[in-house]
Amino acid sequence: MIASSTSQTTDNFAPPPDSKQQVGKFLRQLQDQICVGLETMDGLGKFQEDAWERPEGGGGRSRVMQAGAILEQGGVGFSEIWGDHLPPSILQQRPEAEGHRFYATGTSMVLHPRSPYIPTVHLNYRYFEAGPVWWFGGGADLTPYYPFAEDAAHFHRTLKQACDRNHPEYYSTFKRWCDEYFYLKHRQETRGVGGIFFDYQDGQGQLYRGPDPQGPAAQYSAGLGELKPRTWSEVFTLLRSCGEAFLPAYLPIVERRKDIEYGDRERQFQLYRRGRYVEFNLVYDRGTIFGLQTNGRTESILMSLPPLVRWEYNYQPQPDTPEAELYNTFLKPQDWANWAA
Amino acid sequence: MIASSTSQTTDNFAPPPDSKQQVGKFLRQLQDQICVGLETMDGLGKFQEDAWERPEGGGGRSRVMQAGAILEQGGVGFSEIWGDHLPPSILQQRPEAEGHRFYATGTSMVLHPRSPYIPTVHLNYRYFEAGPVWWFGGGADLTPYYPFAEDAAHFHRTLKQACDRNHPEYYSTFKRWCDEYFYLKHRQETRGVGGIFFDYQDGQGQLYRGPDPQGPAAQYSAGLGELKPRTWSEVFTLLRSCGEAFLPAYLPIVERRKDIEYGDRERQFQLYRRGRYVEFNLVYDRGTIFGLQTNGRTESILMSLPPLVRWEYNYQPQPDTPEAELYNTFLKPQDWANWAA
Repeated sequence: MIASSTSQTTDNFAPPPDSKQQVGKFLRQLQDQICVGLETMDGLGKFQEDAWERPEGGGGRSRVMQAGAILEQGGVGFSEIWGDHLPPSILQQRPEAEGHRFYATGTSMVLHPRSPYIPTVHLNYRYFEAGPVWWFGGGADLTPYYPFAEDAAHFHRTLKQACDRNHPEYYSTFKRWCDEYFYLKHRQETRGVGGIFFDYQDGQGQLYRGPDPQGPAAQYSAGLGELKPRTWSEVFTLLRSCGEAFLPAYLPIVERRKDIEYGDRERQFQLYRRGRYVEFNLVYDRGTIFGLQTNGRTESILMSLPPLVRWEYNYQPQPDTPEAELYNTFLKPQDWANWAA
Repeated sequence: MIASSTSQTTDNFAPPPDSKQQVGKFLRQLQDQICVGLETMDGLGKFQEDAWERPEGGGGRSRVMQAGAILEQGGVGFSEIWGDHLPPSILQQRPEAEGHRFYATGTSMVLHPRSPYIPTVHLNYRYFEAGPVWWFGGGADLTPYYPFAEDAAHFHRTLKQACDRNHPEYYSTFKRWCDEYFYLKHRQETRGVGGIFFDYQDGQGQLYRGPDPQGPAAQYSAGLGELKPRTWSEVFTLLRSCGEAFLPAYLPIVERRKDIEYGDRERQFQLYRRGRYVEFNLVYDRGTIFGLQTNGRTESILMSLPPLVRWEYNYQPQPDTPEAELYNTFLKPQDWANWAA
């Protein structure tokens, strides 16, 4: 009996022996780095940490800032968990993981600023390993209330630079994927001006692994053909580049907008628009729904929800107002990286 | 060839020829009756109506009161729709409806009072017909903030009387079913003090048709054995009794509590607890999720959401406070109909 040659050669595409330690360490440091950066930015608010353990294995540390000078509320969570088997919803996407123990780690963040001129922002980066399979996922996206094209462009360009250092086609694929994922079908609106989003990145040559084969991200990715396979280290480096790009992508926007004065009209519109964030997170967000249905730590999962929210039946912005401009221009996919002033 | 005797006898259990007209008319009148009763109660607020049409067939009328004296917001909707086929989620429950056109009508209501001493309340009654099958469903449930056992008892007793006029086992089954349906698993809380809930009532002798075969409602219903089959008219009469019991179940509670003074502490707790209403409606409520995912009229579906809501990370009520009493006593299933002062 002759063994196949592939099973005898060293697999350059397998994770290194200390893969979990490497990614866990990076994502823990990312949480630290972001919290330090945000406390410095805020000047007043401090993060309070709750460490928690998961009976089935692993745990995390949830950090929340309440009543800061700039941040009305901010949550930054890190978790690292393991167990006997992945949930059915993930096994459906990755059947090779069936029958294997799994490891999962992630850092996630949502910030709700006081000022309606400073956008809400979300970040999540994660890593999974289960038997023969591993993958990275995540992204970051921006949700303005009173938007500035300059801010959307800065956010996208910073993330594009981080992506471009790794592969010239990452940004264009992941930007489209983000517009697709953060979409409120029942409102026919994007959640905000987007950013990047990716999932199931395991080094294979097809970048887009989302559910919509007809969408712009799938079309774009298909047009690239099969790319050269990427090693574990190459994909991990993508994650690091994107994670480290967050503070430079967001802090300059806060700096530019934090001193703009606003009144009750702007505040009420901000509270109303925060309702869309709640609708997205509770109706569509896979991480939130999965966590709630599988006995995750509820307070850590829902620390993404805004501190104060308003709903108003049948609200429509008046034509030719800043509120209407948000709907007409910023809640539709736009090529922000190439925006010209 | 000899035809079977059952196919030749008149089916006493089939709907009458004008079943749709009868139920549609009743549910439209129920909306009218409730709106008149609530406007009289409020004294200031008036319902504004939006009539809407559904391109695929049918339509409805949504009525909203904003900024009343007692009601901060209230929505009462009526809809009557038809189409080629029921959605897959319902066909799974009622496979006999496969391949048949359907008719569905319903009246639903959610009230968000200003005062934290007046409970939020929800009502929904509906009727479906599709080929050989028909069924009634619905219920009403009460969600207090600063609760009174006397109010919970009055609400339950009024609904029990309405049920008892139809069948001695309705209330005990539907009360348990309500506790089961309006349950926030991720919080391990009932939504409030419950009321009644039922679905798929087509006259067959098994009252409970919910998803949990181990729950108290299933156990109770199984203990009854097979009841005598009920005619269409008998089940429709149940619906009418319950619908007409709403105003007598709720208005006396408002009358008793509307003049209690409250301050910022009570208001803040009310806004916080309203968050649970949002979580239930967006994460669990089948009607809401179904509507949002199938291009229902979004503003009509979401008029159940509160006008102002608060989330607070890791909030816990202080021991021995009225807030703690809500959690300890009122957010667990209790036998309110037999409560003794």
